[in-house]
Amino acid sequence: MTATETNAGRARIAEPGEGIGLDELALATRNHGMPLEALRYDVTPPGLHYVLTHYDIPAVDPGTWRLEIGGAVERSLSLGLEELQRRPEVSARVLLECAGNGRARFEPRPVSQPWLLEAVGTAEWTGTPLAPLLEEAGVPADAVDVVFTGADHGVERGVEQDYARGLPLAEALRADALLVWGMNGAPLPPQHGAPLRLIIPGWYGMAHVKWLQRIEVLTRPFDGFQNATAYRIKVDSHEDGEPVTRIRPRALLAPPGWPDFMTRERFVRPGPVTVAGRAWSGAAPVNRVEVSTDGGATWDDAVLAPADPEHPYAWRAWSYEWTATPGRAELLVRAADESGDTQPVEQEWNRQGMANNLVQRVPVTVVT
Amino acid sequence: MTATETNAGRARIAEPGEGIGLDELALATRNHGMPLEALRYDVTPPGLHYVLTHYDIPAVDPGTWRLEIGGAVERSLSLGLEELQRRPEVSARVLLECAGNGRARFEPRPVSQPWLLEAVGTAEWTGTPLAPLLEEAGVPADAVDVVFTGADHGVERGVEQDYARGLPLAEALRADALLVWGMNGAPLPPQHGAPLRLIIPGWYGMAHVKWLQRIEVLTRPFDGFQNATAYRIKVDSHEDGEPVTRIRPRALLAPPGWPDFMTRERFVRPGPVTVAGRAWSGAAPVNRVEVSTDGGATWDDAVLAPADPEHPYAWRAWSYEWTATPGRAELLVRAADESGDTQPVEQEWNRQGMANNLVQRVPVTVVT
Repeated sequence: MTATETNAGRARIAEPGEGIGLDELALATRNHGMPLEALRYDVTPPGLHYVLTHYDIPAVDPGTWRLEIGGAVERSLSLGLEELQRRPEVSARVLLECAGNGRARFEPRPVSQPWLLEAVGTAEWTGTPLAPLLEEAGVPADAVDVVFTGADHGVERGVEQDYARGLPLAEALRADALLVWGMNGAPLPPQHGAPLRLIIPGWYGMAHVKWLQRIEVLTRPFDGFQNATAYRIKVDSHEDGEPVTRIRPRALLAPPGWPDFMTRERFVRPGPVTVAGRAWSGAAPVNRVEVSTDGGATWDDAVLAPADPEHPYAWRAWSYEWTATPGRAELLVRAADESGDTQPVEQEWNRQGMANNLVQRVPVTVVT
Repeated sequence: MTATETNAGRARIAEPGEGIGLDELALATRNHGMPLEALRYDVTPPGLHYVLTHYDIPAVDPGTWRLEIGGAVERSLSLGLEELQRRPEVSARVLLECAGNGRARFEPRPVSQPWLLEAVGTAEWTGTPLAPLLEEAGVPADAVDVVFTGADHGVERGVEQDYARGLPLAEALRADALLVWGMNGAPLPPQHGAPLRLIIPGWYGMAHVKWLQRIEVLTRPFDGFQNATAYRIKVDSHEDGEPVTRIRPRALLAPPGWPDFMTRERFVRPGPVTVAGRAWSGAAPVNRVEVSTDGGATWDDAVLAPADPEHPYAWRAWSYEWTATPGRAELLVRAADESGDTQPVEQEWNRQGMANNLVQRVPVTVVT
């Protein structure tokens, strides 16, 4: 396995003008985004949070399931769910976003799960911190990566595998890295990784491994498929590319007014319209949201809800008062974070369709 | 409004070979089917049940929300949620299926929500019977239809509307027609119609109106868009067509083995493989399920789980023991019900893509 894609194993790019295929549709009907009107909720209600499952949702029996912690540790650990649940319990409100969000907006389109821009959600996750478990197992001084392996099994670009992701040791040792068994006050649902998943706040979704069964400490960088081949930002298939890590800044607005069923075109009446949504970034706190109501010609600051130090990795609400006048308008929104990063108005293409935080555009017809 | 579609308002049919469009994709990323591995659950866990929302999920405040019962009744009623919840409480396990399930398998493809065959789910619904409420309001002897109107508002083929469906009076007066506020032991989630929806067991999903705000008794047939124009089975746009009513028989199997991420192709090892799934019909109890493992050349009876008289409108489990031999196989399954109805192996096309219960086909590669 190398970091470059083989000819057999590289991601397909759609031809110019090629419609969505039945393979992409089969993924879109299984997986789902968060309908954008659900941006109204601080915490995404059950069933509205985005879901991306690489293979099948595995049938894990929580009664016999065990988590194995091993690899280059001083002593391997094996824990049942009840043992984990007797450990200190922590809840955290964390936003997740799929690294492929926005993929179907790339031109040409990388062929994979065809997200538009709705692969997001914020939940209250309940579990126990990971770091004390790693410390109990004993992490050697030369440890580099920690590998999280799920019970989901399948084939991807010719490689049969259990889904597995490596995480740099320093990230795995963060105080806010959690192993969680609860979501929004209820047991973790099957599609979100029951009985146990990793939550590593700030990272794109691929790092929050579901249906966890094994955690291994490595003294070398993990070179498995999901790190070395998938989830890399690259233009040419022979490049190593850059790994996908933390969530780029993004703001989304809940399209105002009412929709056309088929086109999703929006209609509002003239007069004051509150445009509202959420903004987030995995690298640094969001500190600015701007709105354009004229297709990007001019931008105006939105009002940010007060920063919430209790939930640094949740999304932040914002709103903007727009006076709609008859005719057509195009609403845009963009976020910036304290690191100085913001969202592009023109896309920067990559061949696996990763981390596309291109600004959202919402055409609106103002009807009298 | 007439029962025929106008030129402006008729459903579009895709050109031969035309890929799924961005409009269809935008629906597929908002709405979602039930991943077929979830056929393993008697009751579909939260978030895995299919969802189809015509417009937006409305923001309904359950504290101020009221249900109005009126039209041609002797006395109008207006009830808050707590008043409804003080009435006799009933729970029922009922399967729902979208009338558009299978639409994207029609050739040529009607352009709308592009379901393959996963728009299904079974839940425990909790609420109160509808009939006593209608009796309290006083239904006149010449009543014909009962119209259920939701809070969801949008435009469909040029017609701006609150979603509304008429139901024949005799159906509305069935003892098992419920107004429900609970799903799987929890409050009804927003996307399933909070605070109140109709459950009318045996009918396709369009009849189970969500976000209910008004019930009206009519002394004439309801001629609104969702009855007269949408949800009709017709080949020519100028036909009246037949109304979509009860769910046709269908069996689905949970694809065995493990999948390829992108193609969803299935792989199993040679030897005994249990093929299992569920079967249902809205018109009469399922009494036979047959499986083919050779692409439909021969069929063999599956083993049906015992009939469950407590849950006449849930799905019925079945299984079949298959001995897989190396090479390629194609699994098919079909259900029949006590009325003598079964599933077609060849599709019967209709222009809105309704009620397609064509048999499922699952290609499998048996690898050593």
